[in-house]
Amino acid sequence: MPTDLVAALDIGGTKIAGALVDGQGRILLRAQRPTPAREDGDTVMRAVEEVIGELTAGEPWGEVRAVGIGSAGPVDASAGTVSPVNVPGWRGYPLVERVRAAAGGRPVELVGDGVAMTAAEHWQGAARGHDNALCMVVSTGVGGGLILDGALHPGPTGNAGHIGHISVDLDGDPCPCGARGCVERIASGPNIARRALEAGWLPGPDGDTSAAAVALAARAGDPVAIASFERAAQALAAGIAATATLVEIDIAVIGGGGAMAGAVIGGGVAMAGEVLFAPLRRALRDYATLSFVSRLTVAPALMGTDAGLVGAAAAALRAYPDATVGRLRPAVNR
Amino acid sequence: MPTDLVAALDIGGTKIAGALVDGQGRILLRAQRPTPAREDGDTVMRAVEEVIGELTAGEPWGEVRAVGIGSAGPVDASAGTVSPVNVPGWRGYPLVERVRAAAGGRPVELVGDGVAMTAAEHWQGAARGHDNALCMVVSTGVGGGLILDGALHPGPTGNAGHIGHISVDLDGDPCPCGARGCVERIASGPNIARRALEAGWLPGPDGDTSAAAVALAARAGDPVAIASFERAAQALAAGIAATATLVEIDIAVIGGGGAMAGAVIGGGVAMAGEVLFAPLRRALRDYATLSFVSRLTVAPALMGTDAGLVGAAAAALRAYPDATVGRLRPAVNR
Repeated sequence: MPTDLVAALDIGGTKIAGALVDGQGRILLRAQRPTPAREDGDTVMRAVEEVIGELTAGEPWGEVRAVGIGSAGPVDASAGTVSPVNVPGWRGYPLVERVRAAAGGRPVELVGDGVAMTAAEHWQGAARGHDNALCMVVSTGVGGGLILDGALHPGPTGNAGHIGHISVDLDGDPCPCGARGCVERIASGPNIARRALEAGWLPGPDGDTSAAAVALAARAGDPVAIASFERAAQALAAGIAATATLVEIDIAVIGGGGAMAGAVIGGGVAMAGEVLFAPLRRALRDYATLSFVSRLTVAPALMGTDAGLVGAAAAALRAYPDATVGRLRPAVNR
Repeated sequence: MPTDLVAALDIGGTKIAGALVDGQGRILLRAQRPTPAREDGDTVMRAVEEVIGELTAGEPWGEVRAVGIGSAGPVDASAGTVSPVNVPGWRGYPLVERVRAAAGGRPVELVGDGVAMTAAEHWQGAARGHDNALCMVVSTGVGGGLILDGALHPGPTGNAGHIGHISVDLDGDPCPCGARGCVERIASGPNIARRALEAGWLPGPDGDTSAAAVALAARAGDPVAIASFERAAQALAAGIAATATLVEIDIAVIGGGGAMAGAVIGGGVAMAGEVLFAPLRRALRDYATLSFVSRLTVAPALMGTDAGLVGAAAAALRAYPDATVGRLRPAVNR
């Protein structure tokens, strides 16, 4: 029965959230569990199944036509598997097949969490109306996704837009991914804090050494804290400019969360966000130099903590528009 | 009258080539003029009109349904204008409108030369059968284009895939584009030669200081020449890996021409090409580290000097498939 109702799952290293989402992006029902991230894979899956169980128990479930999953990466949408860095029990885990079974055989669309966030910002947030956009999260890590030619571009495996692991400093510091000088290695919250501490920044009496604390110090004029944010902004600018030069985006939407939540670059905290956004806009002028990228703008994300759920729903609606309902393609290798 | 015949123009800083190309990519008729690159804009345009004049004089012209242009950049396909760096008389020059007038009002598709080369390699060359590919030219400059989801991705202005001007060394040497550490600034033919000379490489008795001469020295075992190619390979690898990480390409096709013609990385000269390809494949392992890009391969281009013409034809066929013939949309702002 074609409807605009889908189920959404947002799977991260700390929590597993689920929701029923309608065609306007409204959340009708929610469920959530902590991620038992240190447990074995089947235990993690049971938490997912509990979330799905709460969603299927409600009366609207009968109208749900598909399930969208936004998962911490890496994901492999072509194989239907996930291997989230922070969930060691899942390596090549057949999440799509398991979710499909728990969801009564409904079709399942899997994308990376950066792609899901991007789908949400394009549908309802800061990238709305933009046909070519990069959306990013700068937090414990740096992730992202792409809108190209007016549509979400997940790529064959659901990982496109992975801006955190492009190298902008080919001789730079080794990154845990194996490369050097990746955007994340320079611009993530923990690296902003590490760099400030290494350069002599002293935390306040509360001993808070998070990136949020460095941001507070930067706003108070601490030059070492400011310099650490400026370096992060430079790396982000080089990465954003590279993306624009490669695929002609006209806006980069940046959200925070996790380690840098609200205090630094959360959508609603524009003043605080200027600690990063002001040097980022300056640095973009240095790196986005060709005529066709010179109109590139940056904007804070608007979707907040529901971005993952709303985006997973958007991905499911995109993958299974009305016409395809009932055509239950195999969950794996679609 | 719907046909598979299109006209193609390949406009560069040294020559203006034209051809009639059929739906199988066969060239039926050719015309060529040197580019009067130091003359005023109208003089350059007269050379283009002479090329078109030779094409229109032939009997098949009546069946030509569209014109494709691959031009040295920057181009602005959305405005229908070009501003080639090496043709100072053309700045925001309304090439699409002028070509359309010279071609009897036929629809005109404009893309950058990197995009045109990519269209050719995807249609008939080394990227054939690949749904997600980066094609590049490493020559006097470094250019490129993208195939995404099985189709050419020119971007809104026809410049997508501009890999030569992404920064892979954010603190690196200033690039003429205004940024720092761009791939082209490290990996172009002139920069390979410059770096070798600066590091003490001595040219042979013929005094040839081109990148091709450095390649010959590298093949003969000269460590300074080898090191210069290895550095170029490292920058190309970082740029290719960045592209793969952002848009999930599975192959990078690399062609030469101009300054590095044949002798270095031309498609037919695989032995010579190994001076660049061997260190490039090694360096790719260092920078393309995430699981979803680890199967990325590199391959030499196959299309040779006709890539620009065949690719411009492919772009025109793509923009004006049979069904749209007769719908003569405005040449500007389409």
